[in-house]
Amino acid sequence: MAHQCSLERMTDKIATFSKFGDAGHGGITRYTMSEEDTLARKEFLRRMTAIGAQIEYDDVANIYATLPGTDSTAKRIVMGSHCDSVKNGGNYDGILGVMSAMEVLETVHANKISHKHPLTAMIWTNEEGSLYMPAMMCSGIVCYDNLPENIRSGFVEEDMMKSASVVDHTTTFGEMLAKSEFKGEKKNRLCPEKYLYMFETHIEQGPILENHKKQIGVVDCVLGMFNYAIKFFGQTVHAGTFPMNQRHDAFFAAAEALVYLHTEIDKLNIPGLVYTTGEVSCQPNVHTCVPKYFEFSIDVRHVDPKELEKVLVVVKSVAEKTWGNGCKCVVEKAWNRDTVYFNKKLVEYVKESADDAKVDYEFIHSGAGHDAQFCAYRIPTTMVFVRSRKGLSHCEEEYSTPEDCTAGASVMLGAVIKADKD
Amino acid sequence: MAHQCSLERMTDKIATFSKFGDAGHGGITRYTMSEEDTLARKEFLRRMTAIGAQIEYDDVANIYATLPGTDSTAKRIVMGSHCDSVKNGGNYDGILGVMSAMEVLETVHANKISHKHPLTAMIWTNEEGSLYMPAMMCSGIVCYDNLPENIRSGFVEEDMMKSASVVDHTTTFGEMLAKSEFKGEKKNRLCPEKYLYMFETHIEQGPILENHKKQIGVVDCVLGMFNYAIKFFGQTVHAGTFPMNQRHDAFFAAAEALVYLHTEIDKLNIPGLVYTTGEVSCQPNVHTCVPKYFEFSIDVRHVDPKELEKVLVVVKSVAEKTWGNGCKCVVEKAWNRDTVYFNKKLVEYVKESADDAKVDYEFIHSGAGHDAQFCAYRIPTTMVFVRSRKGLSHCEEEYSTPEDCTAGASVMLGAVIKADKD
Repeated sequence: MAHQCSLERMTDKIATFSKFGDAGHGGITRYTMSEEDTLARKEFLRRMTAIGAQIEYDDVANIYATLPGTDSTAKRIVMGSHCDSVKNGGNYDGILGVMSAMEVLETVHANKISHKHPLTAMIWTNEEGSLYMPAMMCSGIVCYDNLPENIRSGFVEEDMMKSASVVDHTTTFGEMLAKSEFKGEKKNRLCPEKYLYMFETHIEQGPILENHKKQIGVVDCVLGMFNYAIKFFGQTVHAGTFPMNQRHDAFFAAAEALVYLHTEIDKLNIPGLVYTTGEVSCQPNVHTCVPKYFEFSIDVRHVDPKELEKVLVVVKSVAEKTWGNGCKCVVEKAWNRDTVYFNKKLVEYVKESADDAKVDYEFIHSGAGHDAQFCAYRIPTTMVFVRSRKGLSHCEEEYSTPEDCTAGASVMLGAVIKADKD
Repeated sequence: MAHQCSLERMTDKIATFSKFGDAGHGGITRYTMSEEDTLARKEFLRRMTAIGAQIEYDDVANIYATLPGTDSTAKRIVMGSHCDSVKNGGNYDGILGVMSAMEVLETVHANKISHKHPLTAMIWTNEEGSLYMPAMMCSGIVCYDNLPENIRSGFVEEDMMKSASVVDHTTTFGEMLAKSEFKGEKKNRLCPEKYLYMFETHIEQGPILENHKKQIGVVDCVLGMFNYAIKFFGQTVHAGTFPMNQRHDAFFAAAEALVYLHTEIDKLNIPGLVYTTGEVSCQPNVHTCVPKYFEFSIDVRHVDPKELEKVLVVVKSVAEKTWGNGCKCVVEKAWNRDTVYFNKKLVEYVKESADDAKVDYEFIHSGAGHDAQFCAYRIPTTMVFVRSRKGLSHCEEEYSTPEDCTAGASVMLGAVIKADKD
């Protein structure tokens, strides 16, 4: 019989952590290193200290709480996620992974489960990047040496310290960090010499598990993606004085091109493909002027680079035509990332654990980025997904049942017990 | 033989006034009541005083420079426009009407042309509304009593005085006016008791005259228009985690609807119709999120209200459909204005004057708004258009040849001489 985490303890943790940053309408706002974040971190420390975990902080305020194992020479198995949120975010994104890690340690402690490896529950600092960009900042810093060149360039430690608050534009991440009571020593950072495996439990943030009536997702990868900017160049003229046939309307051009993109990409009929045009810019953006410039972003994600390549051909073809009565178009690469596959052995442990726990599960790709994806470049890593109601996330409606959350922790616990044999 | 204005004097005026607010790259930035605006006004006063004109200021800093006529009981014929500009505007929009009015008075003075009515050259304050909105503020205030209800509600004097600078958001129009050396008395305002007719010369701001190889436009009206906001409601979900067929993308919805609008409105095949979708808003406008909200403005102009009505039916039909895989749409009226017809007798004087002057001209509608359009509600009014190179305006490339500018002044002079007989 598989070990089970406690629904009662998990329910209590959800209720407790949902108070730290409670915005009064169901969700939370808990920026990294805010007062609310400090409350959440102190509650983590209180609970971990209560079961005898040893606490360490690294130099970017990541927190590690470790239960010693029976083999004093064995490397640690770490579980964790983040406890910061977006503005008006929900009670699960990030913190569920921290609560699940705590729950695993609490269950190990309560049930006196023997383990060879030390087991660590951890909190990653500033995953959301809500105040200090970029997102996944501190896993980026810690895993920097192992990141691919095109990604690491965005996580140079010196640059990260200068990242200015998007609220006051002056306070920097480095300044806040220097004042943090959780700032510790660089030698405590997660590293292959000290850590064997990493597990992260997270809400799915999508509707796939719910649609398929599955509680748990066994995550095998984080989808590869590319992000391009598609720019249209027209001419600003007066809304009242210029005949229609002489206009070059950049917004109309973009609208035509967006409809074309949907038509052509959908024709490729690639299962599991997602593409998003979420950010726009229009100039001069005045109701009495024809737009001279319009730009939109396109974010395309799929597990298979060959399929992404097919979509990229369509995206680039937009620049080969003129749109909106003669507007030129330029397609510019913003960035891309390869699919990050999680460690096959750990994925198998999660799958076997889900079988043991008799939960309904399926294999799933992560469409979103997580600290685990940077960690995967540094040590063997994998993730467990918990079903999200309606797939909603980054909003106060975000919800997963206590039963599903507890099932996620139990699956991670089972996988860790398997991994502990290594 | 028709009286001719002086190419030499006009050329000199263009060169001189182009210095006041010269931004160093061809055009000007000359906000109302700025230092640059004051320089332009003082040059106006210097030149008008030099020919013996009498100066008056009204309480919103409109300036009136008057050459007395032979009949001391006759009402004044006034010519004018504005000398403020948009940011990085050109050397012609507005100021050409002031320079043309000055040129008419200077020609009358130099050529000793006898006239019964006093002739007034004037400057309207804050036509562009670049710093203090709305545009055409001071003609709106002066002509308030005669404006249609739906327009006058936007020009309540008390509200206008509170209009805050779009730059510092604190200084108000009223405060700047109180400090202005050009603030005079309310009794000096343009009014039917003292003013017989109004003429405004302006650049076309469109390409029609150039396309038709005409120097001058005899303007018969300012086009009626309506402005609506078209709003699309989708759902924000994560770019990586949500299957395409479950998304409700408000930007894609708007793109589909915009293509539909172009198709359906163009099918109506209405000559002279112009429609513009110049201002957009997207929420949350983040590259990793599907837009939950997208809005664009639509501005539609035509001389015939029946044709506008046909277009409005199409615009409203957008709300009867769903777009972008199920996004709802709401179509909201922002405002409208009826076509403002200029005084037929004055239009005929301009036409006859253009015939006399042997310039190439055609009848034209004004697609843009001008002080003359408010004035037309108060006293008989009309306009003269001067050809714009490439139709460009509200930009530093704005250009009309000195010959065309002088022809415009000559046509206005001829029309004023005809009007002087009334």
